[in-house]
Amino acid sequence: MSNDFVPEAAGLVQVAARAAREAQRVLAAAPRGVKDAVLEAMATGLLADSATILEANTRDTERERAAGMSPGLLDRLALDEPRLAGIAGSLREVAALPDPVGEVVDGSVMPNGLRVRRVRVPMGVVGMIYEARPNVTVDVAALAVKSGNAVLLRGGSAAQESNAAIVASLRRALESQGLPADLVASVDAAGREGARALMHARGLVDVLVPRGGAGLIRSVVEESTVPVIETGSGNCHVYVDASADLEAAVEIIVNAKTQRVGVCNAAETLLVHAKVADTYLSRAAAALWEAGTTLHADPTAHRLLRGPAGASGHGHLLVEAAEEDWGTEYGSLDLAVAVVEDLDRAVEHIRTYTTGHTEAVVAQDVAVINAFVAGMDSAAVMVNASTRFTDGGQLGLGAELGISTQKLHARGPMGLAELTTTTWIVEGDGHIRA
Amino acid sequence: MSNDFVPEAAGLVQVAARAAREAQRVLAAAPRGVKDAVLEAMATGLLADSATILEANTRDTERERAAGMSPGLLDRLALDEPRLAGIAGSLREVAALPDPVGEVVDGSVMPNGLRVRRVRVPMGVVGMIYEARPNVTVDVAALAVKSGNAVLLRGGSAAQESNAAIVASLRRALESQGLPADLVASVDAAGREGARALMHARGLVDVLVPRGGAGLIRSVVEESTVPVIETGSGNCHVYVDASADLEAAVEIIVNAKTQRVGVCNAAETLLVHAKVADTYLSRAAAALWEAGTTLHADPTAHRLLRGPAGASGHGHLLVEAAEEDWGTEYGSLDLAVAVVEDLDRAVEHIRTYTTGHTEAVVAQDVAVINAFVAGMDSAAVMVNASTRFTDGGQLGLGAELGISTQKLHARGPMGLAELTTTTWIVEGDGHIRA
Repeated sequence: MSNDFVPEAAGLVQVAARAAREAQRVLAAAPRGVKDAVLEAMATGLLADSATILEANTRDTERERAAGMSPGLLDRLALDEPRLAGIAGSLREVAALPDPVGEVVDGSVMPNGLRVRRVRVPMGVVGMIYEARPNVTVDVAALAVKSGNAVLLRGGSAAQESNAAIVASLRRALESQGLPADLVASVDAAGREGARALMHARGLVDVLVPRGGAGLIRSVVEESTVPVIETGSGNCHVYVDASADLEAAVEIIVNAKTQRVGVCNAAETLLVHAKVADTYLSRAAAALWEAGTTLHADPTAHRLLRGPAGASGHGHLLVEAAEEDWGTEYGSLDLAVAVVEDLDRAVEHIRTYTTGHTEAVVAQDVAVINAFVAGMDSAAVMVNASTRFTDGGQLGLGAELGISTQKLHARGPMGLAELTTTTWIVEGDGHIRA
Repeated sequence: MSNDFVPEAAGLVQVAARAAREAQRVLAAAPRGVKDAVLEAMATGLLADSATILEANTRDTERERAAGMSPGLLDRLALDEPRLAGIAGSLREVAALPDPVGEVVDGSVMPNGLRVRRVRVPMGVVGMIYEARPNVTVDVAALAVKSGNAVLLRGGSAAQESNAAIVASLRRALESQGLPADLVASVDAAGREGARALMHARGLVDVLVPRGGAGLIRSVVEESTVPVIETGSGNCHVYVDASADLEAAVEIIVNAKTQRVGVCNAAETLLVHAKVADTYLSRAAAALWEAGTTLHADPTAHRLLRGPAGASGHGHLLVEAAEEDWGTEYGSLDLAVAVVEDLDRAVEHIRTYTTGHTEAVVAQDVAVINAFVAGMDSAAVMVNASTRFTDGGQLGLGAELGISTQKLHARGPMGLAELTTTTWIVEGDGHIRA
């Protein structure tokens, strides 16, 4: 990309960001009723505009298919009537959520009589850099508007026609409700340099959320001077203790690994206490093999599994684990398996290889459970439950912006509250400081 | 600085960070009693080591005085017995604060019976880059230890001998209580490149807090890949409305400007509603001039003030404001003054020039107060109170790490809770996702 385009892209992003900031002041003061009406108008508008949006999407998918995009990515890019109906439905789900703005987080009266409270307020302008998934365009716009923010969107170029049609529809919905269209804007016209300009729009953009593959997220974290919320990858572990209910432990690992592969809260490594390894592994392996899972086993687990594997005809689904297996987020029907001497070894293993997303313990011994929970340094710890529950919907947040694996501002599933900040409001009666 | 030193500095910082991470695991599980005992041992130890510390400080101040350090900076660098006693006292104040670790932030039972709670846990390893103020070394170590964190310190080179003596004392106190010395470590030995290495220790250092001048903070924000909490500068405003109690408004502006200059919560601009400008400005100016304040007045204010100024002999403390006055954090007995037509003009002025720290409104009209509060985009808004109350101690947080002017994670005064993150703990009875 030529440097000639840089000032132009930066200028375009700055103009959009200033317009978004002005527009956001109008929304900041809007009560919930106004925001929910906009979300409803957006849902109705997307369905009314479905012909235009689907035509644009067809142009995107045909161009990308011709350019050799993989079937998996094409599936994420493609829209049809039912998917558009689902997207409209998610707008209505966000409308049904409580409004985070105005919530009094805490407050008290100081000894000198000052009345102090901290109140949730919108962030301001949220930037989003994401890949070719048109549903993200709507999801993020909905969460931003509900939390009183403006949003600047930089979507993947493969979805550019779809996103342009969707953003145009969302902007018409805003105007139909008497709100400024600039609350939702795309910076796709600035090209690839637009993403870089977003990362450097400190003071104009309040927070930047990258959503996509590890490469995208890393590049944003490295380059951005705007504060970033990192939505990370998940190398999730399940530890089955000697005190575990083994039947529950089989159900949990099968659910955590196979219920949906390719998601960040799926399990990637199973650790089993040596005392129950023989009994448990034969039962767990049978169920996992039945579901088509390849087990990457450490020497002890491999020795224990060789017998039944050969016997049941699943030998091709058993391989010896290499060092890199412990740090791999497979995103597929593969599972690393190791036998550990005790809880401490399990904790050490997890702390060494985890990405800090979700870890689970299956145990009946409360001392083991407490020590496991205390030993973890991850966004979520599951006790006798599947790792798959680390999800905004499952944990009561409603819609989710992503799952943060960083420790600053937001950790774990992020909902509407994570798109707000707080203001201290201090009321006196002519108070001065002594 | 030669590039030859870079790998060495990065290596030294990484070794220190890994040691800090190991040490932090011990502290993470320590109950409040253990942490408070360490803080008490640190206070006792600093006083017992006072001769060594003061000798080291003398070497620092004499070297810097010879090198031409300004009297103001020398004063911030210098320690003596009373200042060391004050520092020991602040350790005991932190010991008296509640422990943020383990606090259940929220929790509920999901419809499927999952028991969900979010619990405060330490961040892990906190990095601090600061200038030549030895008291910051102790303050930050105290806040980090109380909140269960390890801390890596990079102090200004002018205070290097003082900081080395203080850190050695703090480490002895940790060991005296059976805790690892590596909970508090200096990376000053890595030289200037040590600061850069800290900024790039992503994954080893969980959060970086720069504390010092605007140049230091900007350079950390620009370069760091470790998440940063920005403690910003304060261009604070006071708006006196037509409905104000003018006597209270005089006391508030005098307090906000002159009670302590050079702090970030001091007022830098006074805005007065045109209806009361004549009456108010003559009274406010008399009091401000009495305190030695130079008024940088816009044309209207200048015209109103010329008369009494000439009359009272304070004409030399009245100058015409230039455009740059509105964006200046004087840090001195200077105050920009403007007359505004109405509340909206005041809000626009503040939004144009503010650094987002603290703004105050003096008014009796509740509609004006509400509109002012709604119109601000700052960390704190004072209603009929001095801007000087934006302070951790004044707002009930106890000790404070700094005042954040960013919107992510922490906004306004930061106390112990801002050095923690949360973990989701989810308990089931063999729950799997359908």
